[in-house]
Amino acid sequence: MTAPDYGTAFSLWRTRTSDAWSAYVRHPFVESLGDGSLPHQAFLNYLKQDYLFLVNFARAWALAVVKSRDMREMRSAAAAVDGLVNREMALHVESCAAAGISEDDLLALREAPQNLAYTRFVLEAYTRFVLEKGYSGDYLDLMAALAPCGMGYGEIGRRLAREATSSVYREWIDTYGNEAYQEGCRESGALIDAALENRLGPDYAQTPRWNELCQVFEMATRLEAAFWETGSADSA
Amino acid sequence: MTAPDYGTAFSLWRTRTSDAWSAYVRHPFVESLGDGSLPHQAFLNYLKQDYLFLVNFARAWALAVVKSRDMREMRSAAAAVDGLVNREMALHVESCAAAGISEDDLLALREAPQNLAYTRFVLEAYTRFVLEKGYSGDYLDLMAALAPCGMGYGEIGRRLAREATSSVYREWIDTYGNEAYQEGCRESGALIDAALENRLGPDYAQTPRWNELCQVFEMATRLEAAFWETGSADSA
Amino acid sequence: MTAPDYGTAFSLWRTRTSDAWSAYVRHPFVESLGDGSLPHQAFLNYLKQDYLFLVNFARAWALAVVKSRDMREMRSAAAAVDGLVNREMALHVESCAAAGISEDDLLALREAPQNLAYTRFVLEAYTRFVLEKGYSGDYLDLMAALAPCGMGYGEIGRRLAREATSSVYREWIDTYGNEAYQEGCRESGALIDAALENRLGPDYAQTPRWNELCQVFEMATRLEAAFWETGSADSA
Amino acid sequence: MTAPDYGTAFSLWRTRTSDAWSAYVRHPFVESLGDGSLPHQAFLNYLKQDYLFLVNFARAWALAVVKSRDMREMRSAAAAVDGLVNREMALHVESCAAAGISEDDLLALREAPQNLAYTRFVLEAYTRFVLEKGYSGDYLDLMAALAPCGMGYGEIGRRLAREATSSVYREWIDTYGNEAYQEGCRESGALIDAALENRLGPDYAQTPRWNELCQVFEMATRLEAAFWETGSADSA
Repeated sequence: MTAPDYGTAFSLWRTRTSDAWSAYVRHPFVESLGDGSLPHQAFLNYLKQDYLFLVNFARAWALAVVKSRDMREMRSAAAAVDGLVNREMALHVESCAAAGISEDDLLALREAPQNLAYTRFVLEAYTRFVLEKGYSGDYLDLMAALAPCGMGYGEIGRRLAREATSSVYREWIDTYGNEAYQEGCRESGALIDAALENRLGPDYAQTPRWNELCQVFEMATRLEAAFWETGSADSA
Repeated sequence: MTAPDYGTAFSLWRTRTSDAWSAYVRHPFVESLGDGSLPHQAFLNYLKQDYLFLVNFARAWALAVVKSRDMREMRSAAAAVDGLVNREMALHVESCAAAGISEDDLLALREAPQNLAYTRFVLEAYTRFVLEKGYSGDYLDLMAALAPCGMGYGEIGRRLAREATSSVYREWIDTYGNEAYQEGCRESGALIDAALENRLGPDYAQTPRWNELCQVFEMATRLEAAFWETGSADSA
Repeated sequence: MTAPDYGTAFSLWRTRTSDAWSAYVRHPFVESLGDGSLPHQAFLNYLKQDYLFLVNFARAWALAVVKSRDMREMRSAAAAVDGLVNREMALHVESCAAAGISEDDLLALREAPQNLAYTRFVLEAYTRFVLEKGYSGDYLDLMAALAPCGMGYGEIGRRLAREATSSVYREWIDTYGNEAYQEGCRESGALIDAALENRLGPDYAQTPRWNELCQVFEMATRLEAAFWETGSADSA
Repeated sequence: MTAPDYGTAFSLWRTRTSDAWSAYVRHPFVESLGDGSLPHQAFLNYLKQDYLFLVNFARAWALAVVKSRDMREMRSAAAAVDGLVNREMALHVESCAAAGISEDDLLALREAPQNLAYTRFVLEAYTRFVLEKGYSGDYLDLMAALAPCGMGYGEIGRRLAREATSSVYREWIDTYGNEAYQEGCRESGALIDAALENRLGPDYAQTPRWNELCQVFEMATRLEAAFWETGSADSA
């Protein structure tokens, strides 16, 4: 199956970090979503962690609103915040509620300093990394830090929508594999391509700044891969 | 006509800054919107400035998403960003388009360093003030900086909806006087009241922090009043 | 008299904004410092405003510490903060104290929302502009926003040290014309040149990013020129 | 041996998190510095990690300059930045140089996305936590996040200066046990006490805000304890 077409920059990033990228989008956790072998408790552990992550992911997208330079960037980032806060997080809340975990339970996990287990360090490291890039960096840094999550899930959802051999986690797969989400990834990719050219010029991939952005992308990719580990590990 | 009921903190702020508040919400510019005596060109000048202001106002609300502590605060701030970017700004774009001013024309005014006339200094001072509070301050600072605009327009819209003697600027008046906007002001006020108690406790008005927030509110109120002046002044 | 050699980027910026630059560094206020014709009260008004500006200028340099990428950038920015807080501001405090204005008096002016006269709008517009660039922008944005002040004063001090026909304001002139300050400007220029190459590559002046930085530099230059006006205007 | 007197807030925080605090300041790694049993390689591993931490710790103190409200807070934070960048980090550079590790080697570790081992997650989690508090929070959040490091090292240095049974790590112990560092801790504590009263009033410990600050303090304390673990673990 061919790689998804989410634009030039994504394609360059994906090629450049190919080992880390494969380790992320073809992680055993992902494959077990496709063949249905993932234990339900592990899925719930992952959802709980992911909920906390999404709260901060929405904050990072809000920082992208702040750092937008034109109305197209601003509207796209505002739509991402809205989609996360009012739709994607709702899915988590519903799935957790069905398993007897309330939204208050989810949020109570948030800043608790106890139980700093491996899982928690990964979650902290990833969310604080993204947020701090949001504050310290510019719009490009933010896009490079957010792309592995948004586009990686797009690539996984697109692949599993065709390759999944089990329907156990179909709802999750559909969330990211459906055409609206795929279209969002393509638009997002076009926006990143334009943002790079508008700031660094057509030869952006020859600038040192591009190397930095590749490092940000790779760091977020590796943190995503580590994040999968936490689903099957201890519950924070 | 009685003051609007937008909650306890708003009422305290409004009383404490009563002179500045009246100078703002009963400014001659406001009255001339109500009796239709405002020249159309002055209205367009104001709309153009206000469009630039709203771009940064949306950024400030996005910072409120970042600095929210619970999902209620976060959802409210995300809705404000969405409302500004996708609805309130659209009104400006339409009104300006009807007068032959494109959105690109509007944005071109943005960062141009020429023509640093009085108008521009006021606009810069206000927008940078709000944004910097958004970065430097916490959620409460942001609410205090944003309330004069959001709630002041609510109070003006509510009053003019009943008192206006001309229908020339009815569309503008309706934007802020309609029940949905009024309901938004009441919800926003309830959220501010809760945020104060959740952070500073029930006696928040006895803390030094409250005095600071009153100063922020007053500063934004005075900047709003100055902003009305720019409508009838030079176009930046 | 030749232009000072504070590096390549400064030279490009200076040429590109030549009218605005001349209006700033050869402003009548500057000339009146050189020939001693500036009334002492106007000088004190300026010093009071400038003190408030320096408080926020120090904050902006602190943001440059935060956004530094290597130790050379970090040490330079930390030294700038230290120099402002512990030396340059001390000069203002002493000069004002000699005129019966205490440091508490100076700070009391700070956030007072009253008296939003022209002077205050300019001060607010400038300081909030620099701070917001510090938060929103990266190290390069900060350097472009801070260079007109730091290097402009260097150029003025260097010229007046040779051309001044009066000794009335010699202490002020020496502060910026002395060799240590000049050396600081040259080091700062070298650091900016390196920062541009390290991020945007050797052809940085061909990137759109460079155009943005030129706009930031020009905006700060024009705000500096406006700031001179406030010395002879009302005291905020 | 009695607890150090670094002010009221520190004393309250220390009591409230007593288990976590003991686990940090009496960690086996600390005891092995005191009796000299710590292997030199483990000490070097710790120093390398700590160097990277200090780079970001200096950034966090720079954010405290930005968020200061008065000159006393600003001067203190500027002095902390200067002390870290120009003195404390120099000690690390010298100690590492003596072991054949150059400053460039140290910095090269910095943003490398490879080797995301446990050590690296802890370091990332801690440094990004502090930085993000610096951006998102106010001066009080920053003080609560920074106190465990600055004052915890003060308490450890003060105790080991008297109790150490070996001179192997005397230089390290002296760095934090010497009278100048102790005086810095006491001044810092007085500043925190004043900052709390100046913002939240004399009954600050009754406000919900105080509970949040206690959580920030405890989180940083637990991250410090986890950080000791990394000294004896893999080198990132």
